[in-house]
Amino acid sequence: MFLGLDVTTNQLSSWKDKALFTPGPLTTSRTVKQAMLRDLGSRDAEFITIVKDVRQRLVALGGGTDDYTAILMQGSGTFGIEATLSSVIPSSGKLLILINGAYGKRLLKIADVHKISTSELTFVEDIQPDPHVLEQALQSDQAITHVAVIHCETTTGIINPIEEYGKIAKAHNCIYIVDAMSSFGAYPIDLKTCGIDFLISSSNKNIEGVPGFSFVLARKDALNAAKGMARTLSLDLFAQWEGLEGDGQFRFTPPTHSILAFHQALIELDQEGGVAARGTRYQKNYEVTLAAMQEMGFKTYLKLEDQGYIITSFYYPDHPNFNFQQFYERLSDKGHVIYPGKLTRADCFRIGHIGRLGLADVKALMSAIAETLIEMKVQIYKRIEE
Amino acid sequence: MFLGLDVTTNQLSSWKDKALFTPGPLTTSRTVKQAMLRDLGSRDAEFITIVKDVRQRLVALGGGTDDYTAILMQGSGTFGIEATLSSVIPSSGKLLILINGAYGKRLLKIADVHKISTSELTFVEDIQPDPHVLEQALQSDQAITHVAVIHCETTTGIINPIEEYGKIAKAHNCIYIVDAMSSFGAYPIDLKTCGIDFLISSSNKNIEGVPGFSFVLARKDALNAAKGMARTLSLDLFAQWEGLEGDGQFRFTPPTHSILAFHQALIELDQEGGVAARGTRYQKNYEVTLAAMQEMGFKTYLKLEDQGYIITSFYYPDHPNFNFQQFYERLSDKGHVIYPGKLTRADCFRIGHIGRLGLADVKALMSAIAETLIEMKVQIYKRIEE
Repeated sequence: MFLGLDVTTNQLSSWKDKALFTPGPLTTSRTVKQAMLRDLGSRDAEFITIVKDVRQRLVALGGGTDDYTAILMQGSGTFGIEATLSSVIPSSGKLLILINGAYGKRLLKIADVHKISTSELTFVEDIQPDPHVLEQALQSDQAITHVAVIHCETTTGIINPIEEYGKIAKAHNCIYIVDAMSSFGAYPIDLKTCGIDFLISSSNKNIEGVPGFSFVLARKDALNAAKGMARTLSLDLFAQWEGLEGDGQFRFTPPTHSILAFHQALIELDQEGGVAARGTRYQKNYEVTLAAMQEMGFKTYLKLEDQGYIITSFYYPDHPNFNFQQFYERLSDKGHVIYPGKLTRADCFRIGHIGRLGLADVKALMSAIAETLIEMKVQIYKRIEE
Repeated sequence: MFLGLDVTTNQLSSWKDKALFTPGPLTTSRTVKQAMLRDLGSRDAEFITIVKDVRQRLVALGGGTDDYTAILMQGSGTFGIEATLSSVIPSSGKLLILINGAYGKRLLKIADVHKISTSELTFVEDIQPDPHVLEQALQSDQAITHVAVIHCETTTGIINPIEEYGKIAKAHNCIYIVDAMSSFGAYPIDLKTCGIDFLISSSNKNIEGVPGFSFVLARKDALNAAKGMARTLSLDLFAQWEGLEGDGQFRFTPPTHSILAFHQALIELDQEGGVAARGTRYQKNYEVTLAAMQEMGFKTYLKLEDQGYIITSFYYPDHPNFNFQQFYERLSDKGHVIYPGKLTRADCFRIGHIGRLGLADVKALMSAIAETLIEMKVQIYKRIEE
């Protein structure tokens, strides 16, 4: 009992929101949410000015100059990915996809539904796709015009070396598309250095906004070359850009409130010290999580040198009393939301390190996990010692 | 000057939100916006429960029974339309579209981009498509499998007779698709009586939520028949339904905050007295607007018998001093946002009657219009008298 509430039951949810240790939607700041307490006309001057500022700040975050632009696209991150793939690859093009997780597979699924010719290089989930394999593939298949890869594979939390792939893609004159959904805003990414033509991320990730739209950072020349290639109306990336550049308006109703929250989130990212400072906070969250989890006897799925500080996959403990659904619910009842696994080959769960969470939140989660293991009689530390 | 603020300048916007006399995003209640002051995990039990309740309430609003279901789709209303057309019409199908405005044309554009075979019946913007013409078209072209129409053409504000079209479509065994974007929640629509298989509307219309998603009310048998027909991944209506019915989750990140607001908005619609009471409020807004505008010398684009109470198109006054952009900005500076026209054949502007606005708001707008006409020296009333 705490403050008269039984914190082990759902009563907690009406008392205080649970901390979200997930890949998103994330815990956001109070002020980000409060920015949504307004109704702005989507075609009125004030909203148009805010959208313009959001787009400029995004380009700056990617180290972009006048050669680059930012396009906001209604829907989730996947909508932004599909907008890009279905809008910038001509029917005569061929897309090579580097796959080491579920999000790489999703790129392939999108290409397939739009009948885009593809070549896939699939790797196991716990290793980074080898740049040499990409080099060989591009040398042996001259038909490939586009290369796509995931930066942080949220499936495992692995960080793929996008700069190395970019240099190879550029050496072969390929358009280079990076899904930086879970990394942008927490890992420094320089569009030019990495040779990125299209980078996709979303509002509810490391910028710490609320869900409602994705955004695409695009090299203007590559975007201009994509005019008229779109395979849908809603997800037409070029037309969306044309609208935003023309009268500053969206073609179709934008999520005005999510955009107001995102604008506030960008200001708060700046106030925190930008991408470097945010990355440092997330990294500390990760390190404290890792140390405490290892001490309790949990093992990480990835080798630590491949592991990023966005999200970590932990193996289910090898103990007969462990049941993930029960473990999840007991933590949720205590006010902490963790994330199930998405691996094909191993039983894992995931803990995210991103969002408006600091060390106090991480330590509270670690205490709750220790408590839950005792409640469930899962003595993993002892078993390891035996 | 009012409360120390010069209300004729932009200062007003930081003092109080402008009233939105638009087709959406609309002015919403304080409590609807406050419902967004929470961060919920999109895969956590509380959010899943809310989504389920939202879907049940939507089916009930359409008078639906167990034969019908509701699917939420990320993005604006157009995303919901495109999801429907690109997911439920087989490659062997043929779609007949009744067109009397820009939104009917948009249906055609979506069908074209997906290479769906179409037949269009285009009418002038100020009349309802004649049901007899539909009857003849279906008789003469047996290839037609689907019929689509707009209920309230927001271009003008005209209300099309969807029940009559539905009876004809059903008599010819066609699947019947209704874009009820601007009407659902303010006009009673009984899915069964109208023979509707798919009805599309969005979160930021008459339910008075914020933008972020659209929703589709679907007859389950018709939806089941559409399995595997989708032409995109993100906008796959059947797969979205399968996800929501399966584990109750969205396939891709949902706009959690918009959905929380919408849930609150549905509760408030119920508290107001449902669709009938809401329609009555909007109708009063319309009637007071119409009377005052006519008294000032404005003329409506539509004949009054065709005019709905969602939005009204008024001709630009026939006076040399009238300039719409200036008129718009002066009203905006006074705290009222009206809407430009979208007609092909006439210079009009539009005034919406929907959203969390009542007679006090309407009267304030009417005073502001009268004041603005004086400021701009547009003496239209006198000119008529001359």
